[in-house]
Amino acid sequence: MPGGGSAVIAVDAMGGDRGPHVVVEGAVAAARELSVRLLLVGPAAQIQTELQRLRATALPIEVIDAPDVIEMHEHPAMALRKKPGASIVVATRLVREGRAASVVSAGHTGAAMGAAQLVLGRVRGIDRPAIAAVLPTAAGRPVVLLDVGANVDCRPHQLLQFALMGHVYAREVLGITAPRVGLLSNGEEETKGNDATIRAAELLRGAPVLFVGNVEGRDVLAGSVDVAVCDGFVGNVLLKFGEGVALVLREIVRGELRGWRGRLLQLYLAPALGSARRVLKRLDYREYGGAPLLGINGVCVVAHGRSSARAIRNAIRVAVDATAHDLPARIGEAVAETTAVASPGVGASH
Amino acid sequence: MPGGGSAVIAVDAMGGDRGPHVVVEGAVAAARELSVRLLLVGPAAQIQTELQRLRATALPIEVIDAPDVIEMHEHPAMALRKKPGASIVVATRLVREGRAASVVSAGHTGAAMGAAQLVLGRVRGIDRPAIAAVLPTAAGRPVVLLDVGANVDCRPHQLLQFALMGHVYAREVLGITAPRVGLLSNGEEETKGNDATIRAAELLRGAPVLFVGNVEGRDVLAGSVDVAVCDGFVGNVLLKFGEGVALVLREIVRGELRGWRGRLLQLYLAPALGSARRVLKRLDYREYGGAPLLGINGVCVVAHGRSSARAIRNAIRVAVDATAHDLPARIGEAVAETTAVASPGVGASH
Repeated sequence: MPGGGSAVIAVDAMGGDRGPHVVVEGAVAAARELSVRLLLVGPAAQIQTELQRLRATALPIEVIDAPDVIEMHEHPAMALRKKPGASIVVATRLVREGRAASVVSAGHTGAAMGAAQLVLGRVRGIDRPAIAAVLPTAAGRPVVLLDVGANVDCRPHQLLQFALMGHVYAREVLGITAPRVGLLSNGEEETKGNDATIRAAELLRGAPVLFVGNVEGRDVLAGSVDVAVCDGFVGNVLLKFGEGVALVLREIVRGELRGWRGRLLQLYLAPALGSARRVLKRLDYREYGGAPLLGINGVCVVAHGRSSARAIRNAIRVAVDATAHDLPARIGEAVAETTAVASPGVGASH
Repeated sequence: MPGGGSAVIAVDAMGGDRGPHVVVEGAVAAARELSVRLLLVGPAAQIQTELQRLRATALPIEVIDAPDVIEMHEHPAMALRKKPGASIVVATRLVREGRAASVVSAGHTGAAMGAAQLVLGRVRGIDRPAIAAVLPTAAGRPVVLLDVGANVDCRPHQLLQFALMGHVYAREVLGITAPRVGLLSNGEEETKGNDATIRAAELLRGAPVLFVGNVEGRDVLAGSVDVAVCDGFVGNVLLKFGEGVALVLREIVRGELRGWRGRLLQLYLAPALGSARRVLKRLDYREYGGAPLLGINGVCVVAHGRSSARAIRNAIRVAVDATAHDLPARIGEAVAETTAVASPGVGASH
């Protein structure tokens, strides 16, 4: 195991769609550029070969053998039961055992979430862990949108929990002193919303966060809030619709940029198109440096299966940041000082 | 009242944010270009002045006096009660009295919906009328997304009703023989969805429409379905988020198109930027020619308050099309042949 004072991050080497060599390449870049020590989890011989290929055997990277992989088509809960030796389970267990401070995976998001809950458990007072997407805004600074995971049919106090977790993430990791928290709704007026959001807004008005009220879909990327809270069904449909809008616009611009004059224009426009492409990529929250799973008793970051080595390196940096700020402890404190966070009628939750 | 064999459309002249002159201008364009006769409803003297200014007094346009207007800030239900002489109420009443075949408004959508329900009532078997947005897709042909109105907390059989109405609209007005109907969800698998969509999918599998299953956010604009069904909360948040994505991308491209070289490029790029702008506009469903209110016992079309004269003219054309296909009757037939459309436990609904 690597020594020294820097953070130790367990990386599931078998997550990426492109095979372990991309994940290993990203891990090597992180080990070279960041003050970090890594535990690379997966089939040991294969990972060692990759490390040798990259002349990275002298870096603070230890290989932990794990023979099994959870494939994208598998049902996460069943796969986790059938494959206790899966790389994501072994990697997450390293966090519970104290050998790693956090875990990064570019694999099956459902499996990573399942392993995290199974092995590490939830922060006391959090019913359902959430995935937070950090998105670019027109105002220049990012916005935290959550939940974009799979929490559907959320109850009002669960939306409040998402708000608290988003608040803590924006304050600790993004460094925003008093993050403005908005509740995504179909209108700004207090009367607008569905049953769950109207009751969540009531809870939020009594919560220790800077609640600015309902916000509309267009406010998310306008930068008028730092945290936008929604049910996971809405968050999922939203981000994927955004990708669709971007694709349609790209098709149009492409259609106009044909021929020799079009190609010339493309050269001139390369910076603008490049920026636009980066924004589009960031709508796929897992592609941009990894998304934190919030509400877990430990730091877990998921990246997209298609992640490049650069994206893996960025996800490792997100894990380092989240570890440095001890997010689970900060979320636990925020929950403890918010009475309405418990399920109604249940009293103190855990 | 204008005579002849063409459709008679009542137009609420007081709807537009820009004042009656834009609505009157759009109405005059419609009267000149389409085979249509119009009843322009609002303060008679003001409308007559506009008609004289546009040298349109010889066109088949009759002015119907209505002194009151429902303002954007008013609560629709209360305003409708307080102002029985409001232009939208008078215009809708013309449809009930058989003097007009349909009504077009660029005003307060909530007030138009309220007046339609109050004065014309709902199609038998439809619990909640929906607003359908007709959006452009990457595949070239349009998609009908509904509900984008204000129907929140929809129950499964209500989502089924939306599907039937979208099916009828796509078949009758867009001319698609067997429209592919998808249910918006957070994943394509049958197990994905929230409680309401999972149960709605079961109902849809037994309904007389070509149900292709769950579709994801990005499928809407990809053109993989002809009708996309969702709760009004989701539809609203979705479209407004789409506008936000478009705005962020526009800011980026604008930022790169500064200086003299940028301005030169803008000239070259004008067609592409123009197409993109048209797509963005169409994401605001009311701006693109008006959106039909489906499930009303009569044809009602709403356009955006900011509508240009061109958009008003297009909304009038949508009303002409919907009238020609007798949408309320076709929706009534689709409902009658679908047993699951009734609220569970209620038997036949009306």
